[in-house]
Amino acid sequence: MYGFFGTMKAKSGQRDEVVKILLSGAGGLRAAGAHIYVVGVADTDDQTIFVNEVWESKEHHDASLRLPETRAAIATAMPMLTGEFSSSEATIVGGLGVPE
Amino acid sequence: MYGFFGTMKAKSGQRDEVVKILLSGAGGLRAAGAHIYVVGVADTDDQTIFVNEVWESKEHHDASLRLPETRAAIATAMPMLTGEFSSSEATIVGGLGVPE
Repeated sequence: MYGFFGTMKAKSGQRDEVVKILLSGAGGLRAAGAHIYVVGVADTDDQTIFVNEVWESKEHHDASLRLPETRAAIATAMPMLTGEFSSSEATIVGGLGVPE
Repeated sequence: MYGFFGTMKAKSGQRDEVVKILLSGAGGLRAAGAHIYVVGVADTDDQTIFVNEVWESKEHHDASLRLPETRAAIATAMPMLTGEFSSSEATIVGGLGVPE
């Protein structure tokens, strides 16, 4: 399994709107091969958003980025972001909430 | 809900053993208030371990660190770690794999 752990920063006052966009498509991700898709916000500022994802494979994740609904969501959210991103990739070895 | 996203580094050659320790207690975490506990490893080095957790509350997470089995696992793993840690805390706002 493949893990993608990312952060992004929303422009001041726009984080709630970005979070809404990020969550709007979450229901459809399971069919695309996602096991976990968690959206969180920092308490220490009003800009940082965390998105932590576990997918069946990196190929499933990459394919999801090409879906029309994903591309539309990214296009809508992008102007509300500062452009500061971070990400890490991992091989998921187990835990609670992921398949055996 | 509360998110804790951490990394640690194992000394060379000892990552598999640390991962085993981290996963050994995963089954009991749900009873302690964990919704997600994901362990992953970096593909770009042989040291980095990611642990991403979602808990019912920060208080549940903090209490879990005081459990005898958690303290024993930490004591066993610590000599195998380099001492380099990172962590972020978040308020979880939703997604796939977390309760509504």
